[in-house]
Amino acid sequence: MDVELVSIGNELLLGYTIDTNAAYFAREAAAQGIRVVRRATVGDGPEEIAAAVREALARTGAVITSGGLGPTADDLTKPSIAEIFGRGMTLDEGILEDLKQRWAKRGWPGELPAANRNQALIPAGAEIIRNDHGSAPGIWLEDEQGRWCAMLPGVPREFRGMAREQLIPRLVARRGEAVGLVVRSRTLRTTGIAESKLADEMGELAKDPLGTRLAYLPGWEGVDLRITVWNEPSDRAATLLDDAERAIREKVGAWMYGLDDDDLAVLMLQQLRARGLKIAVAESCTGGMLGMRLTAIPGSSDVVDGGTIAYANHVKVRELGVRDATLQAQGAVSEETAREMASGVRARFGVDVGVSITGVAGPGGGTPEKPVGTVCVAVDLRGELRSARTTMVGDRHEVRQRSTQAALNLLRRALAG
Amino acid sequence: MDVELVSIGNELLLGYTIDTNAAYFAREAAAQGIRVVRRATVGDGPEEIAAAVREALARTGAVITSGGLGPTADDLTKPSIAEIFGRGMTLDEGILEDLKQRWAKRGWPGELPAANRNQALIPAGAEIIRNDHGSAPGIWLEDEQGRWCAMLPGVPREFRGMAREQLIPRLVARRGEAVGLVVRSRTLRTTGIAESKLADEMGELAKDPLGTRLAYLPGWEGVDLRITVWNEPSDRAATLLDDAERAIREKVGAWMYGLDDDDLAVLMLQQLRARGLKIAVAESCTGGMLGMRLTAIPGSSDVVDGGTIAYANHVKVRELGVRDATLQAQGAVSEETAREMASGVRARFGVDVGVSITGVAGPGGGTPEKPVGTVCVAVDLRGELRSARTTMVGDRHEVRQRSTQAALNLLRRALAG
Repeated sequence: MDVELVSIGNELLLGYTIDTNAAYFAREAAAQGIRVVRRATVGDGPEEIAAAVREALARTGAVITSGGLGPTADDLTKPSIAEIFGRGMTLDEGILEDLKQRWAKRGWPGELPAANRNQALIPAGAEIIRNDHGSAPGIWLEDEQGRWCAMLPGVPREFRGMAREQLIPRLVARRGEAVGLVVRSRTLRTTGIAESKLADEMGELAKDPLGTRLAYLPGWEGVDLRITVWNEPSDRAATLLDDAERAIREKVGAWMYGLDDDDLAVLMLQQLRARGLKIAVAESCTGGMLGMRLTAIPGSSDVVDGGTIAYANHVKVRELGVRDATLQAQGAVSEETAREMASGVRARFGVDVGVSITGVAGPGGGTPEKPVGTVCVAVDLRGELRSARTTMVGDRHEVRQRSTQAALNLLRRALAG
Repeated sequence: MDVELVSIGNELLLGYTIDTNAAYFAREAAAQGIRVVRRATVGDGPEEIAAAVREALARTGAVITSGGLGPTADDLTKPSIAEIFGRGMTLDEGILEDLKQRWAKRGWPGELPAANRNQALIPAGAEIIRNDHGSAPGIWLEDEQGRWCAMLPGVPREFRGMAREQLIPRLVARRGEAVGLVVRSRTLRTTGIAESKLADEMGELAKDPLGTRLAYLPGWEGVDLRITVWNEPSDRAATLLDDAERAIREKVGAWMYGLDDDDLAVLMLQQLRARGLKIAVAESCTGGMLGMRLTAIPGSSDVVDGGTIAYANHVKVRELGVRDATLQAQGAVSEETAREMASGVRARFGVDVGVSITGVAGPGGGTPEKPVGTVCVAVDLRGELRSARTTMVGDRHEVRQRSTQAALNLLRRALAG
């Protein structure tokens, strides 16, 4: 099944916004055997929009638009596309009611502004594509020849959610059982090991293992190994991926923490919850990033009590009981300081696990002995202390991200015993 | 001057690579009054490439392609476009010589591979666009009617360098001195007000104020208003932007915190530093995100002491001195609790400013009185207390991001007095 994408918005044409929706859709769709064969980007002008959609309909008859469904005056997508299908615009009472309720919920003064009412106007005979992530619903418009145009909002959170939950399932169902070949990928997530070291450890498997295609995807979470099978029947694709994963695990399983979208923070929360352990964090250079990561997970409150952001040294001493002697002798960025921070926050919050991070995030503050990127992490698991020191690459933000991952990886090893 | 971009590459269509070249070119070109009016993305197939370029030539007669000039077999851009112009391919001795020298310089064994020789093949009658950043030269092809296609490599470093140093100057020169018109944009950053409410407040100005074009760009930081002036002399463009900004400020200045790339956290740190004020944070639903945001800024250590992540209620009481009575009567998500958290963290850390956040980030935990997205923030500035309650839209992550912005916006108002 071939489709075309039309991304709408002057801000895209002007280059102020990078179009990540199109790439997201292409990847998600490919996994279902739906191929994006052409993409176009046009401005907010009704003629531009109509021209691009008309051309795409003539080519593939299957068009997905992104953007131009907002409440403000510069959003003209729906009427210009309705015209192509020879449809007028009608007010959808259901949408209007929903918009009114959302407005009321926000607790802003006054009635729903006229601008928002535009969002309730839809082409005659159109179907609504549900939007569980925002106020602007999507539109499905189709003619007698089966040519269709699906209009989604451009806000990434809304576009992605609707593509994943509504549009792609609809296209898969529409395609029916007939077609068979799929493209399937699986990602093996590693951390705490360099890309080149990983390749060495994998030996023979380092290049396209067992008939799959292998991509190394290094990032702040670690190095992801993505294996992909192209155009195979889905059962055969699954077997190829299973065999390749098993072979790779035998080589580098020790550094693997999960698959696909697995998040190390989520996995750690699950393990802590399963064991009935409570956790608190002590953060210096990350300034709250580890706490933020852990509490980003719904339901984390039954495991995470909180923590101390000990950015200034006197806070490390006063709030966490780090000894002045340690700061003098070892420095704020040292495994010993990290260990005292972990034990200190565990004692102060009266929890089972204390996790700490202290480091030189940069760009300033580096020394020959402790260059920018030097980070020490520690874990106190019911009095059992572990610590590690590494040197991270990347800018300030990336060093901080990598630091939270290093702390969670040390926790992973501590819980594994 | 209007141009179209055609980005070539299966990896772009598949979504494994994000097209940043197009955005870069659009921004750089706009600053010179050259407008990108349409973008297309196609795969590596010669028919796809030819179709996209032919259509663009028919529309604007001014086409820039990105990608498909490398040595590998899947690069078919040049021949397929040459065919559109009815030209054959010829070997360019100059390019070949240059390629041979590059090969020799790299110290690789043997002769220049046949694959690389392809790079020396150019359409008959084409001009070379110099590439000082890589091996593949660019191509300029033009017909008798003055319709042209410029082919640049897709490697971002090469594309950007050539666009900046070769192509854009060529287009400006081609347009001639006669014109000298530019496109200029300015972004007015607002927060704490909805897009539609903003439009209402702006009244007459809500649509293309004073001869500028206005775009509403909503995000978690707030709603950005980007005003753009098209094809004016640069001094006139500046005047138009100044006038529009002044007029908009009169209407919605109270919600404006900055311009263009201004970050509210950076602005607040600057103000605190200028006044010699130290700050500490107390975070519940954001779990450290505000601390992370503040400490993301290099040099923040002279203003930020740290803070307390008070995720569990007993931590709010024990660490921040929130009264049990308050939690009982008002609940953890209340302005009163937020105020006690702000005062508590300020006292505990002995700083000038305490900022707090407590809310229902969702997806669970909502009630009719306090639905998901209900967030209370408070600021204690040397004993002077302020607090606010709002209902945020978006998923858990966005609610948390918006919460940090709301807290910083309250701090902004507190510092403004």
